[in-house]
Amino acid sequence: MRILLVGAGGVGSAVVPIAARRDFFDHIVVADYDRSRAEAVVSKQVGASKRVGASEQVPPSGPGRGPGWRGASARPVEDRFSAIGLDAADQAAVEAALREHRCDVLFNAVDPRFDMPLFRAALAAGADYLDMAMSLSRPHPSRPYELPGVKLGDEQFAMSRRWEAEGRLALVGMGVEPGLADVFARYAADHLFESIDEIGIRDGANLVVRGPDGQEAFAPTFSIWTTIEECLNPPVVWEDGGWHTTEPFSEPEVFDFPEGIGPVECVNVEHEEVLLVPRWVKARRVTFKYGLGAEFIEVLRTLHKLGLDSTEPVRIKGVEVSPRDVVAASLPDPATLGDRMRGKTCAGTWIRGTGKDGRPREVYLYHVVDNEWSMREYGAQAVVWQTAVHPVVALELLARGTWSGRGVLGPEAFDPVPFLDLLGEYGSPWGMREEGAAAA
Amino acid sequence: MRILLVGAGGVGSAVVPIAARRDFFDHIVVADYDRSRAEAVVSKQVGASKRVGASEQVPPSGPGRGPGWRGASARPVEDRFSAIGLDAADQAAVEAALREHRCDVLFNAVDPRFDMPLFRAALAAGADYLDMAMSLSRPHPSRPYELPGVKLGDEQFAMSRRWEAEGRLALVGMGVEPGLADVFARYAADHLFESIDEIGIRDGANLVVRGPDGQEAFAPTFSIWTTIEECLNPPVVWEDGGWHTTEPFSEPEVFDFPEGIGPVECVNVEHEEVLLVPRWVKARRVTFKYGLGAEFIEVLRTLHKLGLDSTEPVRIKGVEVSPRDVVAASLPDPATLGDRMRGKTCAGTWIRGTGKDGRPREVYLYHVVDNEWSMREYGAQAVVWQTAVHPVVALELLARGTWSGRGVLGPEAFDPVPFLDLLGEYGSPWGMREEGAAAA
Repeated sequence: MRILLVGAGGVGSAVVPIAARRDFFDHIVVADYDRSRAEAVVSKQVGASKRVGASEQVPPSGPGRGPGWRGASARPVEDRFSAIGLDAADQAAVEAALREHRCDVLFNAVDPRFDMPLFRAALAAGADYLDMAMSLSRPHPSRPYELPGVKLGDEQFAMSRRWEAEGRLALVGMGVEPGLADVFARYAADHLFESIDEIGIRDGANLVVRGPDGQEAFAPTFSIWTTIEECLNPPVVWEDGGWHTTEPFSEPEVFDFPEGIGPVECVNVEHEEVLLVPRWVKARRVTFKYGLGAEFIEVLRTLHKLGLDSTEPVRIKGVEVSPRDVVAASLPDPATLGDRMRGKTCAGTWIRGTGKDGRPREVYLYHVVDNEWSMREYGAQAVVWQTAVHPVVALELLARGTWSGRGVLGPEAFDPVPFLDLLGEYGSPWGMREEGAAAA
Repeated sequence: MRILLVGAGGVGSAVVPIAARRDFFDHIVVADYDRSRAEAVVSKQVGASKRVGASEQVPPSGPGRGPGWRGASARPVEDRFSAIGLDAADQAAVEAALREHRCDVLFNAVDPRFDMPLFRAALAAGADYLDMAMSLSRPHPSRPYELPGVKLGDEQFAMSRRWEAEGRLALVGMGVEPGLADVFARYAADHLFESIDEIGIRDGANLVVRGPDGQEAFAPTFSIWTTIEECLNPPVVWEDGGWHTTEPFSEPEVFDFPEGIGPVECVNVEHEEVLLVPRWVKARRVTFKYGLGAEFIEVLRTLHKLGLDSTEPVRIKGVEVSPRDVVAASLPDPATLGDRMRGKTCAGTWIRGTGKDGRPREVYLYHVVDNEWSMREYGAQAVVWQTAVHPVVALELLARGTWSGRGVLGPEAFDPVPFLDLLGEYGSPWGMREEGAAAA
């Protein structure tokens, strides 16, 4: 498998050290609008492999190497990774890069406004495609807080037949949320429940970032561009066979996260799982709630009030920039925060329904990453590492033929068991907590 | 008098209709970085004069013309105003413009980061100079919330001897606050008090802006660039013969504003009056407090938290922009809000001390502008109109020789009585409220 990884930002830069420990692919071309950023990610990995020591690079994996190693390739890192400059918005350039580097899969690790040119480029160049966030939504023109307009992924699913006809796969929403969360939903439907009443994706963390002065600082741990997009759009809910929308930050609830994170207030947010899960998994209700916290909600509300969430360019002395890009550029790069972060992040899927034994059941399937661990093991902060590991696992399943398919498919279209097993082999196992009556 | 008015933003565009009713000057050249903006301001005034009717333009002022008219010049508006493009940061270009248009005074109506090039250009070209905000401060490097670093106006006052030697006047801080507020302080010292304990500038409003949808909207009524600058810098206080600084938004107090505005919570803000007043008026304590309101304070805190108050450029796809400029460009131009605004704005100076009769006295000298009035009379919203009228009054006093001076001087260096009298002639009288024991 030859992979064109588009985007050397937070997630893209965490993909490289994860993939470097695996032998399922032949080559990854790291591409970024800023070529030097792509080069820095590859050089850093080359440097890391040199520090491991030449003797350890030659033989296949051995014990004591830490998590995630599977057959360290005999080929040096510099032969397995390369870097190029590439504009993700330029479909023709992306097609040319796929052909020039003979890539059979495009791994999209840029923000979702570039989904469609990348998705179309892959189809045109005869490559498979994987992303972690689906094509963008547009609110309903007259009743935005009641009805969906163009939904997340609609533009992609509209092209599913063409992908099927070409015999190619577009695996959409294959990060952690969406991604692992959807795998959990399918696992619950297949193995834990007879029927499902509600599936609620719940995301929370107790991460704290300190500034250079040691004081607690405001610094989003994930792409602020994407966070603004998902949090300020009308949240979408699946209920009784259809989708509806609500006001932003609706239906707050306190969810108790595992492994010491504890209770966090979560609110409805627009997210892909709500659009993906009902396509393959039967449930009366599907929601996504995010543990944003009061401070972050206030920041997002203020950005919206000032128009700084806008992606429409404003003109300043002859130069055009989008305010949201300026917000992103003004904040520290989330990928660089690992050294100043402490705490854990949790992604997971809570399911309530009737168990295989016919009795009420309620479980939370989850995945926790401790920043201290991800920094020590991979030099990547917890949130970007958690997003990066799942698409690599999925690519490995595709490369080995364990997963296969054609058309535009979500993670819940595949058998969840090999995915969850392989995740354990990557050193980052998942967990399950029984809740409600069954837990008592 | 020939005037180079640099800046056709909110205040600059309000200066033109005020000045058009007066005959003290020969010509105003309106200059802006965006030449079309300067041209639009002049064209609008030409259009307004045509609507008044040709018959009314020829004779000198008559009754029934409304406020501010003094000898409508026989010369048509298009001969008294012209427009040019000019970069306020380019000292050489400003000097050239002053010489080419034979201007004897530079009226600075751009934001204070351009003070120094404009101030130096005026001196080099042998022109007088007037601004409404002094050269910028820089916080103390190690104790920013205790001690001042470089203070507002320090760079300008450091050149006072050169202005004196050249026989030219730089009248700094001559808007409403600073400006009228300083005139009030001098008036109180000359005519109302034997000795002064405290001078507190207090600014508050009950203005409400509605969005295009008719709902109450967030829209600053004055330059957000300047508001960020003054509100996020450490506030400065004069006390017992020296200046010190505090944390932003310190010492909140509720001040009761006149003419129906009512009580507004005010907080310490860095402002020129605190630096200017003690140079000419004896007082134990001088403060400036601004009625920002909780929502605006939250917005400013959030901008600071995100680094969006910064004037340091960030790089976005090869383009450099300052986040603060993007914030300003994302919000509606304050000058355009008049039609959607309601309410009044109040600027004033509260003074406590010992009256001429030896008894305790406390007064608030103030100036209120009702947006409905300023829109109807001048087509300018209340806040920018209130800032624009005072420098025009000052220029008229200088043109007529009522005020004169050399060097770098604040408004309190001049006799306040002719200023306050002339303000009444402009149709916008000031008021005085007795407070405390004397009022009871």
